[in-house]
Amino acid sequence: MTEKGGFPAARTVLQQCLQARLQVKPADEQSEAEFVQIDRGMVIYVCFFKGATEDLLPKMVSSLLNLRLCESDSGKLVSVLELPGSLLIVPQATLGGRAKGRGMQYHNNTGKEDGLRLYSAFISLCEREVMAAAASVGRAEVTVKHGTYGNRQVLKLDTNGPYTHLMEF
Amino acid sequence: MTEKGGFPAARTVLQQCLQARLQVKPADEQSEAEFVQIDRGMVIYVCFFKGATEDLLPKMVSSLLNLRLCESDSGKLVSVLELPGSLLIVPQATLGGRAKGRGMQYHNNTGKEDGLRLYSAFISLCEREVMAAAASVGRAEVTVKHGTYGNRQVLKLDTNGPYTHLMEF
Repeated sequence: MTEKGGFPAARTVLQQCLQARLQVKPADEQSEAEFVQIDRGMVIYVCFFKGATEDLLPKMVSSLLNLRLCESDSGKLVSVLELPGSLLIVPQATLGGRAKGRGMQYHNNTGKEDGLRLYSAFISLCEREVMAAAASVGRAEVTVKHGTYGNRQVLKLDTNGPYTHLMEF
Repeated sequence: MTEKGGFPAARTVLQQCLQARLQVKPADEQSEAEFVQIDRGMVIYVCFFKGATEDLLPKMVSSLLNLRLCESDSGKLVSVLELPGSLLIVPQATLGGRAKGRGMQYHNNTGKEDGLRLYSAFISLCEREVMAAAASVGRAEVTVKHGTYGNRQVLKLDTNGPYTHLMEF
């Protein structure tokens, strides 16, 4: 949660998975839908708010990837880097919603251009951290996949307990 | 979100689903694991905090079930009662976590006894609302299923876009 008690700059929801599959290109007349998939690891749903800047990202990524949220084979809680597990990063603008009457408003979400830039930089930082951790233990199957910003996020999730966490920055 | 800006009494995460399956009894020596399943509808992950009372529940349930979070066949946003869709309610104590260093603390979560009582009352209210809405449009397949409080929540989720929302009360 935000330490200052103010409105956050970014909101994430984290779920542990055994396998997760996300559509990255919908089907059209020429081709079938395209998907990315990870096996064991963590799904990060992420939404940036107005005022979020890239300064935020190193601490945010470090926190998300080093928190002990994942159950290892021995039942011990370890970070996704320690597991080591893969990441599926899902842009999720709906996370920024606030109820107004029976509808949802998204006035605090960052604009599309800033959102895409922050999302892309967030992914790059995650890739760097995950790849370094996986290389250090020789686990080449560990990977970072992500959804396409602005698209519908068609998701299939298989868990051993999603252990849903909320983290705001 | 809480309107007063204070610490919430309950936190929910909402995801839309095409199908969701949850383990309600783990396998043991005598029998296989047992599951509940819904088709189209909404998954509600719920966590109660210290200080939550049953007074909270009617407004909470009314808000969650009447918010326009679900995409109808025509693409219009409607509530889960209007869809009408089923509910899968998942007790999710991890949602109450706060990071302390690299670990998570759950000091603000309600105790087990209060939590179970609130969770059970929350389910009953949801059942009443969903069943009334389904009966009024003759949709007998609409249902409310839920996880077992205190158990590991082994979940399988198939979505057409989870549209993850956070709602606090």
